[in-house]
Amino acid sequence: VSEQPSAASKPAPKEPVRNTKYDPKKPHITETPMTKKNWYKHVNWLNVVLILGIPLTGLIAAWWTPLYWQTAVFAVAYYFATGLGITAGYHRLWAHTSYSATTPLKIFLAAVGGGAVEGSIRWWARDHRAHHRYTDTDKDPYSVRKGLLYSHFGWMLMKQNPKRIGRTDISDLNDDFVVVWQHKHYLKVVLFMGLIFPSIVCGLLWQDWLGGFIYGGILRIFFVQQATFCVNSLAHWLGDQPFDDRNSPRDHVITALVTLGEGYHNFHHEFPSDYRNAIEWHQYDPTKWSIWAWKQMGLAYDLKQFRSNEIEKGRLQQLQKKLDQKRSKLDWGVPLEQLPVMEWDEYVDQAKNGRGLIAVAGVVHDVTDFIADHPGGKAMIKSGLGKDATAMFNGGVYLHSNAAHNLLSTMRVGIIRGGMEVEIWKRAHAEGKDTVMSKD
Amino acid sequence: VSEQPSAASKPAPKEPVRNTKYDPKKPHITETPMTKKNWYKHVNWLNVVLILGIPLTGLIAAWWTPLYWQTAVFAVAYYFATGLGITAGYHRLWAHTSYSATTPLKIFLAAVGGGAVEGSIRWWARDHRAHHRYTDTDKDPYSVRKGLLYSHFGWMLMKQNPKRIGRTDISDLNDDFVVVWQHKHYLKVVLFMGLIFPSIVCGLLWQDWLGGFIYGGILRIFFVQQATFCVNSLAHWLGDQPFDDRNSPRDHVITALVTLGEGYHNFHHEFPSDYRNAIEWHQYDPTKWSIWAWKQMGLAYDLKQFRSNEIEKGRLQQLQKKLDQKRSKLDWGVPLEQLPVMEWDEYVDQAKNGRGLIAVAGVVHDVTDFIADHPGGKAMIKSGLGKDATAMFNGGVYLHSNAAHNLLSTMRVGIIRGGMEVEIWKRAHAEGKDTVMSKD
Ligand code: HEM
Ligand code: HEM
Ligand SMILES: [Fe+2]
Ligand SMILES: [Fe+2]
Ligand SMILES: [Fe+2]
Ligand SMILES: [Fe+2]
Repeated sequence: VSEQPSAASKPAPKEPVRNTKYDPKKPHITETPMTKKNWYKHVNWLNVVLILGIPLTGLIAAWWTPLYWQTAVFAVAYYFATGLGITAGYHRLWAHTSYSATTPLKIFLAAVGGGAVEGSIRWWARDHRAHHRYTDTDKDPYSVRKGLLYSHFGWMLMKQNPKRIGRTDISDLNDDFVVVWQHKHYLKVVLFMGLIFPSIVCGLLWQDWLGGFIYGGILRIFFVQQATFCVNSLAHWLGDQPFDDRNSPRDHVITALVTLGEGYHNFHHEFPSDYRNAIEWHQYDPTKWSIWAWKQMGLAYDLKQFRSNEIEKGRLQQLQKKLDQKRSKLDWGVPLEQLPVMEWDEYVDQAKNGRGLIAVAGVVHDVTDFIADHPGGKAMIKSGLGKDATAMFNGGVYLHSNAAHNLLSTMRVGIIRGGMEVEIWKRAHAEGKDTVMSKD
Repeated sequence: VSEQPSAASKPAPKEPVRNTKYDPKKPHITETPMTKKNWYKHVNWLNVVLILGIPLTGLIAAWWTPLYWQTAVFAVAYYFATGLGITAGYHRLWAHTSYSATTPLKIFLAAVGGGAVEGSIRWWARDHRAHHRYTDTDKDPYSVRKGLLYSHFGWMLMKQNPKRIGRTDISDLNDDFVVVWQHKHYLKVVLFMGLIFPSIVCGLLWQDWLGGFIYGGILRIFFVQQATFCVNSLAHWLGDQPFDDRNSPRDHVITALVTLGEGYHNFHHEFPSDYRNAIEWHQYDPTKWSIWAWKQMGLAYDLKQFRSNEIEKGRLQQLQKKLDQKRSKLDWGVPLEQLPVMEWDEYVDQAKNGRGLIAVAGVVHDVTDFIADHPGGKAMIKSGLGKDATAMFNGGVYLHSNAAHNLLSTMRVGIIRGGMEVEIWKRAHAEGKDTVMSKD
């Protein structure tokens, strides 16, 4: 598709290497077709355990684990905190730099974001930038064109060829020590923020170590994962496209409710560097509200926002596009350039011989079948037959509605040579005033 | 404003004369300004008694009149029947001939319509045709431009100059013996259908002669009058204008609920000969449903309907109009023809000297303040400075969104002489290939 300019392709010097087993010279498993014999090699078993296996174990364990109300409240609150780590931290801060954060806020977001167990910031943001840059193409790591379930978590459950995913510039992330630190110590962060921290809170405060582990840890991870995965699946599948319909992103309040406000995804793909996803005050975007609150507290700054003029331009162009599509499906009458040309006398003769012809604005219309239906009465419309009815039709007798004009255009049968001036011109000619006529 | 052709202005031969006191030679009272001394002469006292006085008496009488449930049920049913007399009879059948009715149905509609006490069909339909033909002008008998209350019933409570109201062709009504008979015997019809008939029904069937008179007669008349008056007031005041916004008619479900379905009045003024007012199945239009049912029963025929193609054309044109209004309020950047013309070398020089200039599609943009904000990174956008970035910007490196194009247009500062081919042409020139270039 496209080539990377040097700025993006030069390896970042401080880049920490995570996957040491990856050898770009050996053919990758995804380059071998899946068969009955090798299918298990295509599966990313580690992710299957992390995303499906552990939650299942948690669900079974929950059967024997009593749920204290304090633990339930904490689990829901921690669900929101870790969710925000992804939406306000991983996504809007690091992947899109839609605002700037002070170090304490960055550390908080890197910590709770790690507790959502969705990979390091660095890995997540790189894939996400590729997703924006190559949306719906083969270079999109979670393209919805490969299926709704694929975009939800199929792309993680199956092994991926790292060469396939589009490359992006993450030099800014490599310069961010919080990002680099979190990436380096990712396993420790996950274990601590994902499981140990919720156990400690519930254990120390109300002696529910196990409940904290099962409900605040394992099951909460499952729900926050599934919710944020919806940004890649549901948000590319359900809803309207008020800004652009060339790609899959869509706006829907249900997706917003599930994803802490990331549901206005058509807007987001069009204006990715805007710290908001919802721009209307009545739309649900708690991530935006949080960022705004952090700003009031001095923790966040430089909140980026697209000018509403640009946003409205986008909305308008999309509406125009839809309108044009609709217009092309309607019958607008025979185009003027396809009509046969008639002489004025020919028109008058045919009308005299009983054909219901009426000329308006240089175009001859056959109204024979309409005379009896004319809302202004038969007499009125008959008074225009065989004449230049332009003035009568346009206010001389009655200022016809837009609907009447539309109807008229469907009755076109011919065009008069020289237009309507002919009659006047002929009269002038007969009277000997054979000079140049000026159009009014 | 406009002249009537002969067909409409010749007096109908069978025209029954109702107002014998009217002398066109004497100056009409409305031609004298209203003062403290003569104001009572401006009031139409007969109508004040009919529209306000009698209902008020009825309300007082109701205080001492017990309401039987049978009478209540009958009054509501008769309210609907007499309302339909106006909406399906007076309005859609006679004023607009939007369908044809057999004689039994005509007699039924003329009878129950008379029971609503809103004047004869002939008088009502003549005014209503003038209302459509001269909507919102001085010739409109109940123009909302004179105030909401005026259009509701002010026009009846105050004397009107009959010369003011626009003339219309009612020759078809003068040919309809049901219309003519009802007009001639109007007082009898009103007394019988408005008051006597409801008293008889309630008296003979459950011995509630007085209740029938008060509730089924007087108060029911008041409600049906006020409801149908809303077509002239509320329907020109509340709601949307999906088909035409040059005049006052509007669509609103509240008006529809009040007026037996006449609330889609913007549609109705645009397509007056359509037997429907609501075109969507889920919209409330019991008048349409009744006409349709009568058709199934063989009582009505020739139901007229505008082609949905014409209706959609109207809707689309109105949407387009609104879009164009919105478009004109947005900032689309300096128009190309107002930009200063720059030489290619001048552009390159300025960019080299540190000005953040970038040329895309023949236009020079000053992106100095945007470089740090560029969502694709500083390096990317800098790589285009001082160059022809058309290809890069349009997919060579990254296929920018519509939003990016809009943003770019607000940064225009100049136009390059000869457009983008200049650079290629100059290279070709330097290489000695000084031939005609073909555009791709
Ligand atoms: C040439 C083809 C014609 C077409 C397709 C046409 C169509 C219509 C339509 C659809 C209406 C309903 C109201 C509206 O939509 O504005 C109407 C009303 C009317 N037309 Fe025409 N018309 C034609 C010619 C004429 C001519 C030649 C005259 C007069 C010389 C005329 C006089 C009127 C009048 C007076 C009304 C008002 C009826 C009323 O609301 O009472 N029309 N016409
Ligand atoms: C000339 C003025 C430019 C403007 C106004 C502009 C604007 C934008 C905007 C608004 C985006 C966000 C995504 C989108 O809306 O499509 C974007 C992304 C991008 N731009 Fe530009 N751009 C400009 C020049 C360039 C140039 C010259 C390059 C490359 C040589 C470039 C490369 C990119 C890339 C690669 C992205 C994708 C970022 C990502 O999603 O990861 N842009 N640009
Ligand atoms: Fe997306
Ligand atoms: Fe995003
Ligand atoms: Fe109206
Ligand atoms: Fe009407």
